Amino acid sequence: MDYLEMLGQKAAAAKYELQKLTTLVKNDALQKTADALVKETQRILTANEKDYVIAKQNGMTEGLLDRLKLTPERVEGMAEGLRQIAELDDPVGEIIESFDRPNGLHIDKVRVPMGVIGIIYEARPNVTADAFGLCFKTGNAVILKGGKDAFYSNEAITEVIRETLTQSQISADAIQLITDNDRAVTTAFMQLKQYVDVLIPRGGAGLIRAVVENSTIPVIETGTGNCHIYVDEDADLEKAIPIILNAKTQRIGVCNACESLLVHEKIADRFLPALGKALRENNVEMRGDERVRALIPDAVEATQEDYGAEYLDYIISMKTVVSVEEAIAHINRYNTRHSDAILTDNKEHAAKFLQGVDSACVYVNASTRFTDGFEFGFGAEIGISTQKLHARGPMGLKELTTYKYLIKGSGQIR
Amino acid sequence: MDYLEMLGQKAAAAKYELQKLTTLVKNDALQKTADALVKETQRILTANEKDYVIAKQNGMTEGLLDRLKLTPERVEGMAEGLRQIAELDDPVGEIIESFDRPNGLHIDKVRVPMGVIGIIYEARPNVTADAFGLCFKTGNAVILKGGKDAFYSNEAITEVIRETLTQSQISADAIQLITDNDRAVTTAFMQLKQYVDVLIPRGGAGLIRAVVENSTIPVIETGTGNCHIYVDEDADLEKAIPIILNAKTQRIGVCNACESLLVHEKIADRFLPALGKALRENNVEMRGDERVRALIPDAVEATQEDYGAEYLDYIISMKTVVSVEEAIAHINRYNTRHSDAILTDNKEHAAKFLQGVDSACVYVNASTRFTDGFEFGFGAEIGISTQKLHARGPMGLKELTTYKYLIKGSGQIR
Repeated sequence: MDYLEMLGQKAAAAKYELQKLTTLVKNDALQKTADALVKETQRILTANEKDYVIAKQNGMTEGLLDRLKLTPERVEGMAEGLRQIAELDDPVGEIIESFDRPNGLHIDKVRVPMGVIGIIYEARPNVTADAFGLCFKTGNAVILKGGKDAFYSNEAITEVIRETLTQSQISADAIQLITDNDRAVTTAFMQLKQYVDVLIPRGGAGLIRAVVENSTIPVIETGTGNCHIYVDEDADLEKAIPIILNAKTQRIGVCNACESLLVHEKIADRFLPALGKALRENNVEMRGDERVRALIPDAVEATQEDYGAEYLDYIISMKTVVSVEEAIAHINRYNTRHSDAILTDNKEHAAKFLQGVDSACVYVNASTRFTDGFEFGFGAEIGISTQKLHARGPMGLKELTTYKYLIKGSGQIR
Repeated sequence: MDYLEMLGQKAAAAKYELQKLTTLVKNDALQKTADALVKETQRILTANEKDYVIAKQNGMTEGLLDRLKLTPERVEGMAEGLRQIAELDDPVGEIIESFDRPNGLHIDKVRVPMGVIGIIYEARPNVTADAFGLCFKTGNAVILKGGKDAFYSNEAITEVIRETLTQSQISADAIQLITDNDRAVTTAFMQLKQYVDVLIPRGGAGLIRAVVENSTIPVIETGTGNCHIYVDEDADLEKAIPIILNAKTQRIGVCNACESLLVHEKIADRFLPALGKALRENNVEMRGDERVRALIPDAVEATQEDYGAEYLDYIISMKTVVSVEEAIAHINRYNTRHSDAILTDNKEHAAKFLQGVDSACVYVNASTRFTDGFEFGFGAEIGISTQKLHARGPMGLKELTTYKYLIKGSGQIR
């Protein structure tokens, strides 16, 4: 594991340099990196083509091939992402709190970079530039382990960034890519605790589980979403169908899409047939309990597994409930602590739902699709945290920082 | 592992109840628990005597026996701790941020309990009441795994608390003690991810390492401290000796005690002989580099291991450095990210040190012993975090909470 030790030492050296960079210098480097990516488009596309051919030969699915594929527009999109990050406020250096103690000590709680961030992700080369931009803007060194199917693309993008940093007289080790694709190296990376301050997996449930189980570095879990919408007895049913359609079908493969629907039994007769029609017209397969199936004849039977499933597909599970309390209990049993919504005009029910549902984002009368760093106005997003430690919900730049206490005295002792 | 599953389910049921309790109800229960502990002193002391006799037979050291031992005063101290927690502000429900989006969504970021907190600690029965008080005040259910040498004491304290909660019509499962002392059960507890939101080890480096290596639950690492004091060339040497003596000897077994001293070579001649005398008079063994040993003849040679050691004893490592930069680099190499201090009247050196040292708490001209929740004015302390995720430095009540976003709309879709 000498290889990782070396990467760790280089990242550690770079982090002290990055912590000292001014916002101006960082923004300038981000703009230059964006320009360089565009300028080197052909080099990046050539590398990407190599990945694409191998992946296709290996039988990669169309959906994944599309995520892997780069085009001039997509490279421009990566550059644009970096330019947007340059425009954002720099959270580093913010004095979060400031207080004086009776003994005369003055304490400042100051926002600082984490240090070294590790990111493990799948075969999506755009994440390489994006993760670099977010980490660099917040003064962190980043070590990346991308999916091996995007290896040549990641290598080309990383090289372009490193060359640009060197030209700007900034340590190229601000970004390092793990080029050894041996699984044992990835596992060892998850335990490079001496050098890596936080590890963020970006990808599907399997990747996240592997990281949680193997890492000794603190992990931020992101992005598994079994999101619910509960249609209350006092819901505005006219608004309910557009919200449900949006949450389910606007983009099916995302973590904030709606996967499960609860409907109060009092409105089932009035509501479910119309909803069934709308979902059917949008090619959504419905899986429901007995009551649902009685009102929507083409709905199939929902199992316990359905209630816990993150389909990421044109499928929805459906269940009737007798009360907002039952809805809350069901959601807390099956959700992934991501995003859940109640549709109601009843303030008491809304308040109960907001208080009772254990999720990063709890909605009243809106689509769950708004759980997103950009929609929240953060201007950037490293992921959606589904854990409770450190950050919950959409994570922007601030969530890539920590703080330290600076204490000034004049000889105080205890 | 049916046993842990059962504890987990009980904690999960209790957490939803605890989240809804008003501050008044929680404070009242804390006061009643404090009264009950005092009233049941004899019962607790009898149980503690049982532990003490067994531990002594098993050859427990005097220091650990002292930590295990309860007296009427110490039980009163536990009760007083709970009363103090009752007096503190309740962080739950605080609206941390509130913002409106252009599409009309109103977003509140609200402080909420974590849910279920797991605490693993050593044979210190006072932690049982303390951990309960902090978790309960913040609306969290707690599952405790205490050191087996304090088993009967912990059981008695937990029983008294549970009885009092039941009398107050609050779920007794707000506190549960793992009574199976099998090591495999403890390891399985560290993986009870479905039910436990955060795991906090309270104890020595070995315990913390075991938790970090085995846990799949997010962990907050606490309390290992290799704290440094750097005496700069521009230090006020009159103030330096009292600060060093305080940081080293006021209480040797604590994580914020000074373990290592760096001295600028320009003042070594003037300063080290006087410091050596002061440390000698306080029975502190000195281990230094060549320059130190030349000026303090009874100092022995310091090894690389010494520079990385958390002695928790009357021992200090000492080294001369040529600059504040060398001091910073040495500290960042050997420290545990806990607390480090510079003694200087040079503002530029102070600023460099504050910026450059990677620790939770960085001091100028004060003892490292102030890294403490009470000294920071938090009114309580669950531990000192030495990691960067979630909380850094002294953790008070706020650090036992998380947040959620409550989003109110009127039919918004994307």
